[in-house]
Amino acid sequence: MSPINLAIVGVGKIARDQHLPSIEKNPDFKLIAAASRHGGVEGIAIFGSIDELLAAVPDIEAVSLCMPPQYRYEAAHKALSAGKHVFLEKPPGATLSEVEDLQAQAASRGLSLFASWHSRYAPAVEAARALLASTTIRSMKVTWKEDVRHWHPNQDWIWQAGGLGVFDPGINALSIVTHILPRPVFITAATLEFPENRDAPIAADIRFTDAAGLDLSAEFDWRQTGKQSWDIAAETDAGRMLLSEGGAKLALDGKLVHEEPEQEYPMLYRRFAELIGKGRSDVDLAPLRHVADAFMLGRRKVVEAFYD
Amino acid sequence: MSPINLAIVGVGKIARDQHLPSIEKNPDFKLIAAASRHGGVEGIAIFGSIDELLAAVPDIEAVSLCMPPQYRYEAAHKALSAGKHVFLEKPPGATLSEVEDLQAQAASRGLSLFASWHSRYAPAVEAARALLASTTIRSMKVTWKEDVRHWHPNQDWIWQAGGLGVFDPGINALSIVTHILPRPVFITAATLEFPENRDAPIAADIRFTDAAGLDLSAEFDWRQTGKQSWDIAAETDAGRMLLSEGGAKLALDGKLVHEEPEQEYPMLYRRFAELIGKGRSDVDLAPLRHVADAFMLGRRKVVEAFYD
Repeated sequence: MSPINLAIVGVGKIARDQHLPSIEKNPDFKLIAAASRHGGVEGIAIFGSIDELLAAVPDIEAVSLCMPPQYRYEAAHKALSAGKHVFLEKPPGATLSEVEDLQAQAASRGLSLFASWHSRYAPAVEAARALLASTTIRSMKVTWKEDVRHWHPNQDWIWQAGGLGVFDPGINALSIVTHILPRPVFITAATLEFPENRDAPIAADIRFTDAAGLDLSAEFDWRQTGKQSWDIAAETDAGRMLLSEGGAKLALDGKLVHEEPEQEYPMLYRRFAELIGKGRSDVDLAPLRHVADAFMLGRRKVVEAFYD
Repeated sequence: MSPINLAIVGVGKIARDQHLPSIEKNPDFKLIAAASRHGGVEGIAIFGSIDELLAAVPDIEAVSLCMPPQYRYEAAHKALSAGKHVFLEKPPGATLSEVEDLQAQAASRGLSLFASWHSRYAPAVEAARALLASTTIRSMKVTWKEDVRHWHPNQDWIWQAGGLGVFDPGINALSIVTHILPRPVFITAATLEFPENRDAPIAADIRFTDAAGLDLSAEFDWRQTGKQSWDIAAETDAGRMLLSEGGAKLALDGKLVHEEPEQEYPMLYRRFAELIGKGRSDVDLAPLRHVADAFMLGRRKVVEAFYD
């Protein structure tokens, strides 16, 4: 099979760090063009907008959309209307409703839409899912604490309304939790901390439960200096589970039981090729739905101003 | 067919004003019991909790849940687990995720779940829908302004986190808009005004669009004294449409074209009986999804304190 002609739109940090190297190594795709307001990609035709891109390069079969979520719907709608398969970076959109609409558009055109959740492809996530399916979970605690100055330096869009703030990393945790738990959960209470000079939260404390009364809590914080925490811990009948380093390592009662090299974005592109090959879409809105639920249900607390 | 044995849980203002009179007049239902922390219902056995109700009256076939949304999931889960059909007052829950979970529970047990949106049954709504389906819409403006002191006197729960604030009436407008428009819409920007002493918004200004670029805006305000406004106006190729008084009247270019007596709750109970008879559910989450999207995407503005 000849490779799928791919274009990338929004050539920022995540595109350079993850998408371009993964596409480069995947023989199912051939990157033939890009659109970006900022930088180009060496050896690839670059355009100033998705409209110019789609008009100038009719051979494009699929596009990866890596711009901030506030601008993703319009680009996705244009790409689907032009008959292209679409890969959406996370979060898949600025609202749930727009992504539902894109799903319907892709379905009606027989195109593949992939709402990607890279953290679900972290090395030890499937092992954690298998473990939890085989035991009884007594409680679970998610701790996602990182230094926003280090990971998102001067990325203004994440602080704007719709940019999600600390839920930008937190949604990675939610994408894992919703994948490894045996039953759906829902939020019962949340507190969101907004810096007085920002429109998005810098921290969140969230309580969930499920139909069986599971005790699940999550703490997201962007003010963590020093050691960073991306941990999901659970007390189970099989022992104390710790899925750490963002899903990279799994330990049971302190003993490491699963670790392998990180391959998140290469696996996302393998999945995207598989979806296109099978004529299917993969759009799980559960992680974004929990974020929307947290904003709707959560109590707002104003905290000290944040400056980059 | 013998009537369906019904129980009502949460006997507050909406139950007394709307549910009880509608059930009384509908021969498909027989009200046999109620649960309420506050008042009773004349001639009907009353219990202090849904647990006591379900244990004491096994003949119950369906329940109507009229407590505040923060407490609805637990009651619905218990009722479905006991094999009862469930009618949910609006909004159907405190989160989208919990209602999705209830939908799955009802489906797996072959029970009917009805997420009711009473305003969709307002007298002129179907006529507005037919009009909009037959023309091109240039723009639409929703104005939903009422006096919270008059309509929700001392109802503390609507001001708590999860109580939705001005979206409690606003979701009625959204339930109509999502029903009468020919295509799905999504929010592009929103401003939510929170009184400095409350955890829920008192006003909201929302911009929507759709795949075709529709210009749709909504203004919700709870500080309206004097004349109250529950209007949906649209500029269309057929003329200026005005759906006013919460969906009661439809005018085209200033001329009244549809008006009939209000029958919202009687129609809801007819619909519920129909769903039970057909073994189906009716759970459209679009109105609540827009509310969650507005909280997630919206900018928060703190305004002066509100006292009842």
